[in-house]
Amino acid sequence: MSGVKARNDKRKQILAAATRVFARKGFYHSKVSEIAAQAGVADGTIYLYFKNKDDLLVQLFEDTMDRILSGVRTALDGCTEIRQKIHLFIAHHLQLVQSDRDLAEIITVELRQSHKFMKEYANPKFGEYLQIFANIVQEGQDLGVIKAEINARVVSRALFGALNELFLYWLMGRGKFTLDEAIRNIDEILLGGLFVEHTSPCHR
Amino acid sequence: MSGVKARNDKRKQILAAATRVFARKGFYHSKVSEIAAQAGVADGTIYLYFKNKDDLLVQLFEDTMDRILSGVRTALDGCTEIRQKIHLFIAHHLQLVQSDRDLAEIITVELRQSHKFMKEYANPKFGEYLQIFANIVQEGQDLGVIKAEINARVVSRALFGALNELFLYWLMGRGKFTLDEAIRNIDEILLGGLFVEHTSPCHR
Repeated sequence: MSGVKARNDKRKQILAAATRVFARKGFYHSKVSEIAAQAGVADGTIYLYFKNKDDLLVQLFEDTMDRILSGVRTALDGCTEIRQKIHLFIAHHLQLVQSDRDLAEIITVELRQSHKFMKEYANPKFGEYLQIFANIVQEGQDLGVIKAEINARVVSRALFGALNELFLYWLMGRGKFTLDEAIRNIDEILLGGLFVEHTSPCHR
Repeated sequence: MSGVKARNDKRKQILAAATRVFARKGFYHSKVSEIAAQAGVADGTIYLYFKNKDDLLVQLFEDTMDRILSGVRTALDGCTEIRQKIHLFIAHHLQLVQSDRDLAEIITVELRQSHKFMKEYANPKFGEYLQIFANIVQEGQDLGVIKAEINARVVSRALFGALNELFLYWLMGRGKFTLDEAIRNIDEILLGGLFVEHTSPCHR
């Protein structure tokens, strides 16, 4: 068992190093040897765990998505009010960005730099993430509080795009607004735009 | 004069070739020599017009933004109703994507692959584009029809992110929705979320 644990720890150590190197140098300009140096392992060790640099990015993304999925499910657990669920989903996305800027930069900026990743990777966990939001919208429609004419798929994709763009802007230090202000505005627009009757956004 | 015209035509011919090559191979994997071949010019000719591949991307983007800016201003010219202005702005963005998929793919996907571009280019024309939308929101606030608590900068950035994500999804052929459906949903959410009183979206 300790062999499995040691292997898992080493894998995590390499992924943490890759996060720092990708965020600092950009995915395309990062070398596997730099990730090895940052992780304090031999170059060859990386290839015992990962096929190549693309594989590092995919596994980094999948590990992160696993944490996000479990985090957002925990946050939503026990919450039954649709407006509150929408707010929690958005706030959880915000917390991720605030808690690890390097990781957030990779998810928002660097991920798009891998042509292979964008064009070939089916990205099932990201689909799962969007589906959580689409399900909240669908549930609101079933309860009759969210407009029937809203397309849950379109809205979940649009929300992700909006949040991603705001966070990207914020990460690059160009945003002349705080993340809390961003969230308040998105809350306000979504709650006013999605619901049959307008309700003020609920805040934490 | 004909020398100036010939130079402009050659420049446009190279930019059109770059559009095709970038869209097909991705920015990072495209070679200047491939762009030259596509344009039917010698490799060295490219460097009479552009400093390097990054410069090609920047100039392609700036030329495109000039066309978009003039197009959206023409579309809005003479329109005084705020809801209609918002709809026209969104619809104009849609028309660009529909009219040139290669160009749209570069603007939405490839642009983000240039680390230099993303991190160092101040992107003034894109700022101008977002400012047009921010001004519409501001105008609506001055007229008292759009909620005072909305931050026009946040909303214009969020709208761009939402549209970009929807179009990216659509371009990659993964969208299980039409572009018209995307626009209808964004219209509905924005008009419901931004305005003091809910109004149905106006359609073309």
